[in-house]
Amino acid sequence: MVMSVYLHDIPLAQAQARLQQALQEANLWRVLGMETIPLDENALGRVTAEPIWAKISSPHYHASAMDGFAVRALSTVGAMPSAPMTLLVGAEAQYVDTGDPLPDWANAVIPIENVESLDERGKITSDIRTPKSIRVRASVAPWSHVRPLGEDIVTTQLVLPAGHILRPVDLGAVAAAGHPEIHAARKPRVAILPTGTELVPIGSKLKSGDILEYNSLVLAAQIKAMGGEPTRYPIIPDDFDLICQRVEEAARGHDLILLNAGSSAGAEDFSAKVVERLGQLLVHGVAVRPGHPVILGMLQRESGSGNRKSATNPDSQFPIPILGVPGYPVSAALTVEIFVEPLMAKWLGRRQNKLQTEEAILTRKMVSPAGDDDFVRVVVGQVGEKLLAAPLARGAGVITSLVQADGLALIPSGTQGVEAGEKIQVRLYRSKSEIENTIFAIGSHDLTLDLIAQDLAERERRLVSANVGSQGGLVALRRGEAHLAGSHLLDPGTGQYNISAIRQYLPSVPVKVVALVGRQQGLIVRKGNPKGIRGLKDLTRPNVQFVNRQRGAGTRVLLDYHLKSMTISAESIAGYFQEEYTHLGVAAAIASGRADCGLGIAAAAQALDLDFVPLFQERYDLVIPKQFADDHLLAPLFGLLADSAFRKAVSRLTGYDVSVMGTVVLED
Amino acid sequence: MVMSVYLHDIPLAQAQARLQQALQEANLWRVLGMETIPLDENALGRVTAEPIWAKISSPHYHASAMDGFAVRALSTVGAMPSAPMTLLVGAEAQYVDTGDPLPDWANAVIPIENVESLDERGKITSDIRTPKSIRVRASVAPWSHVRPLGEDIVTTQLVLPAGHILRPVDLGAVAAAGHPEIHAARKPRVAILPTGTELVPIGSKLKSGDILEYNSLVLAAQIKAMGGEPTRYPIIPDDFDLICQRVEEAARGHDLILLNAGSSAGAEDFSAKVVERLGQLLVHGVAVRPGHPVILGMLQRESGSGNRKSATNPDSQFPIPILGVPGYPVSAALTVEIFVEPLMAKWLGRRQNKLQTEEAILTRKMVSPAGDDDFVRVVVGQVGEKLLAAPLARGAGVITSLVQADGLALIPSGTQGVEAGEKIQVRLYRSKSEIENTIFAIGSHDLTLDLIAQDLAERERRLVSANVGSQGGLVALRRGEAHLAGSHLLDPGTGQYNISAIRQYLPSVPVKVVALVGRQQGLIVRKGNPKGIRGLKDLTRPNVQFVNRQRGAGTRVLLDYHLKSMTISAESIAGYFQEEYTHLGVAAAIASGRADCGLGIAAAAQALDLDFVPLFQERYDLVIPKQFADDHLLAPLFGLLADSAFRKAVSRLTGYDVSVMGTVVLED
Repeated sequence: MVMSVYLHDIPLAQAQARLQQALQEANLWRVLGMETIPLDENALGRVTAEPIWAKISSPHYHASAMDGFAVRALSTVGAMPSAPMTLLVGAEAQYVDTGDPLPDWANAVIPIENVESLDERGKITSDIRTPKSIRVRASVAPWSHVRPLGEDIVTTQLVLPAGHILRPVDLGAVAAAGHPEIHAARKPRVAILPTGTELVPIGSKLKSGDILEYNSLVLAAQIKAMGGEPTRYPIIPDDFDLICQRVEEAARGHDLILLNAGSSAGAEDFSAKVVERLGQLLVHGVAVRPGHPVILGMLQRESGSGNRKSATNPDSQFPIPILGVPGYPVSAALTVEIFVEPLMAKWLGRRQNKLQTEEAILTRKMVSPAGDDDFVRVVVGQVGEKLLAAPLARGAGVITSLVQADGLALIPSGTQGVEAGEKIQVRLYRSKSEIENTIFAIGSHDLTLDLIAQDLAERERRLVSANVGSQGGLVALRRGEAHLAGSHLLDPGTGQYNISAIRQYLPSVPVKVVALVGRQQGLIVRKGNPKGIRGLKDLTRPNVQFVNRQRGAGTRVLLDYHLKSMTISAESIAGYFQEEYTHLGVAAAIASGRADCGLGIAAAAQALDLDFVPLFQERYDLVIPKQFADDHLLAPLFGLLADSAFRKAVSRLTGYDVSVMGTVVLED
Repeated sequence: MVMSVYLHDIPLAQAQARLQQALQEANLWRVLGMETIPLDENALGRVTAEPIWAKISSPHYHASAMDGFAVRALSTVGAMPSAPMTLLVGAEAQYVDTGDPLPDWANAVIPIENVESLDERGKITSDIRTPKSIRVRASVAPWSHVRPLGEDIVTTQLVLPAGHILRPVDLGAVAAAGHPEIHAARKPRVAILPTGTELVPIGSKLKSGDILEYNSLVLAAQIKAMGGEPTRYPIIPDDFDLICQRVEEAARGHDLILLNAGSSAGAEDFSAKVVERLGQLLVHGVAVRPGHPVILGMLQRESGSGNRKSATNPDSQFPIPILGVPGYPVSAALTVEIFVEPLMAKWLGRRQNKLQTEEAILTRKMVSPAGDDDFVRVVVGQVGEKLLAAPLARGAGVITSLVQADGLALIPSGTQGVEAGEKIQVRLYRSKSEIENTIFAIGSHDLTLDLIAQDLAERERRLVSANVGSQGGLVALRRGEAHLAGSHLLDPGTGQYNISAIRQYLPSVPVKVVALVGRQQGLIVRKGNPKGIRGLKDLTRPNVQFVNRQRGAGTRVLLDYHLKSMTISAESIAGYFQEEYTHLGVAAAIASGRADCGLGIAAAAQALDLDFVPLFQERYDLVIPKQFADDHLLAPLFGLLADSAFRKAVSRLTGYDVSVMGTVVLED
């Protein structure tokens, strides 16, 4: 054990406290500054730097609330349908449009539809707005149909507090209160410096070992969404002096520096040394996953340059905080959420963006290092009364796990993991109503599900699918943890699909089973089929490396059925115990050379430009508990199965037969 | 009844359907268009116009997940602590940094901390990265510490569906999938035309009858928030031909026209006529409040100009929809929410912004016209188990009611109103967690509450207060409808404050009563006290017009107590029955000339630059049911009462005595 002493992980709260204390000592734990901005639509989303008090009242005079005649209420006392009163226009009544000021002598308005306009001879006239007199048949109360001065806003009243994020209606209220400008918190300027010799910009033609640099893009967009002003720097190669130089440059015009990658302890991880050279290293390593090799530090004033800059930019100052952001994209994004959002909130004077937290039931056991706060990305679905959280891929390099995530579950330090069925706290990225419109599918994966997801999105539904294989899906249905399961489980005894497995796994759950597609299963092989694989018996050849699906997958059941009937043993197949969880996973293993072949569907082979040896035709069904089959949540799904455009789209996938689509195979 | 036939209100759903049908006929009920934008942080918030499929895999090679040595897993089989194996660097092991590609022959990585680096003589060397050989004491499984090709993204996989609003992490996933650009839905261009001779721009010096034009600002900000591109036009005076001309101009470069005001049926309401001249009037009047004089129409192709424009702007087309937006600011903003948001969602291909809806208990009876869908702005608070909605001012001119609103309650057509205590559906503008951090105060108003609200905002609490007077507050506490009530009810028998009223109104609710302030009550009079008012006996003078507080207000009780002791009858005071609900309301009535004087607090007089005749000193307490007094929700409030900076801020208000602040007057 040579190198385990690099990082000294400290608890998250302690790391945050150290940063806060350093900022307080530097007088940087406060609103950074204020600027005056015009009151226009670009003020949307800005944060008020001071309370806004009304300079004028609104309305600033007694205004008519209707088109009609301004009168003295007293003059109408006694008017009745049977005893109308006539008021002389000029002295006793005056026509006003909505919004017009009342004459000084008036204190009420009679809407025009409630008066009769009379000409000089006392006859009703069509000249309703400029008659000689009006006849009224009811008295009016003082101040009726009047918007009195200050009805909306009274001079000196508080219109908006400081720290308020401006919405459209706020801009109107500020204008109504007599302000043509707003004092807004200055946007924190954040420099984002990507470092790494292996990095190449987005759009580059890639060779092996090149890594696309997109963390700076994600970080910049996060900063922008938080209300800051990001600057993305070009990629800096792993050169200690060069990195120091760029950091010093960036420090002059910014409030915060995010130095991306190089924060770990590898040969070319310079970030900690850069911080130590230019300032003070506060934290190196936080007990949080993903993201633990975080660096927090403060850069010190550089003699000369700080003063020089301060002449043109009064807010620019040293020391300034620097964050060493880990390189894996999930770690990078979460590090910014955890450490930068509270800082931006403080600097802008606004409240922190807090995600709504809900208690959910974990669908699958998760192991977690006891010493760390472990943030797990989950998809979330409401199935009956249960709010469920299914963990997504946990690799810190899997940015799609953040894209797919509906929420973030925290397994706090001190916990070694969570069992399936236990309750966990989930911070939701989506609203409860979005989650209530989510169809939660657990089971076997098929490419058709992606097309369904895309089309359901236009029908106010989300389809979220977790791939655990056909058996896993039926088990989830039994536990009440999914609205439906995709399944293609062959009964070796009957040659039928799904029915006997449903009876075995769901003995007491009434279900509806609807056929989705017929599809071809076969061997996915490399382009040109260099090993000349023709069938399952070729799997036993010593030079053929196989890749399998996981236990419980319908494809695995199918394989085992045929292997048994051909009396081929699992042990005779190299790679039988090497498992992937999806058809595309199998195809990717073959495309990458990790294996020569695997059983799967034609579309997966086609997707990765591989060849395909068709072997069997099978049926893929949707298994739906009756309790959900008639729910309005699933109605758009059934609509889709009957939609000819959707059938056509599926039939364009290689190896798919849509003739069975929508057929009810079983209904309890 | 002359003019009641102007508008033909139709139900909301019918109006929406008519607009949708006209757009469908014009082939405008679809995504407007697509544009290619660079993949940078400005893509944040844009909507994908097509599904995004992966062009490359990520990683695009087998990458080391650790700093360490790439090996063949097979070479390590049999290695144990007691039986280490030595691998030759070069042929059997190769150093790799995190992210480096594996050599073709390798299929696993041993982290550097798990190997011993050896020199040419087989001794442990400090040259850990370029040794001659390495010693391993455990076997490794194939593919351990490797990120296999496609771990994150597999070529051809769906990365994002069409109609997705781009978040920071999405940008990273799109980049990882090999896209340097994004096909985004074109932003709908919306022209906003304010009309009205009485309108003046923001920042103008106002004279009576001038109306500040800020609707175009609110509308533009709404359009921007929805993802559109607004253009604000200058104010157009009420001139039919000029309005027609400007609308035609705007029609050429925009997808939608919002013509603000002039949509009613008054003398200068030209909007309907403009639409009739330039196209087709679909709807004039919708049975929705506020906002019923809405106009929906379609402008027709103008020969020549449409074609001319289409050469440079392929998306520009006729017919184009036009919306006559009512003039009152609340009506205007709600009209855009109701009619424009669904249109923008369709044009951008995204899902509609739907507010979360919750069932809440109405705190106060509301009457509503049976024929209309009535949208009522409410503040919302969670008090114990109850989610409560208290209606705000309902005037369509009161934009601050939208600013203060936590949600929008719909009283559907067919309902004449809702009783206090009934349940209503509320669309929430705030998250449930914000509402759970809301202290709901109902009772007497004091200016100190505004200061408390401002300071609590920095302590993660919102204070929402509904002003119903002291008695009303105690009644609300008895019903379990508030966390606390401000009260200053004098017991005429004992001269004590609040205790006897609490015993009377809350006989079975244990409470804690904390003194907030001592404050001066007196007569608010016009500047210079032109009528020479010195005390309550002056109120009976025939030339003195009084303005009173509502029944149940502590100030009203105080007045009645002193009137009784002076044997002055209510009937002898002109204006005794004219009621206002707040101190500032009383002050505003005096400032506007509606009254000569009213009983109130010094600070209200000062706020509106009025004079004040001090008469009495009274105590204003916070009455808090025990069940909430110890709740963490209220802890920051008690913290504030002990905060010297807060005391100082209150003591700066005229007529306030903070010596009693925080004193526990009663604790059951």
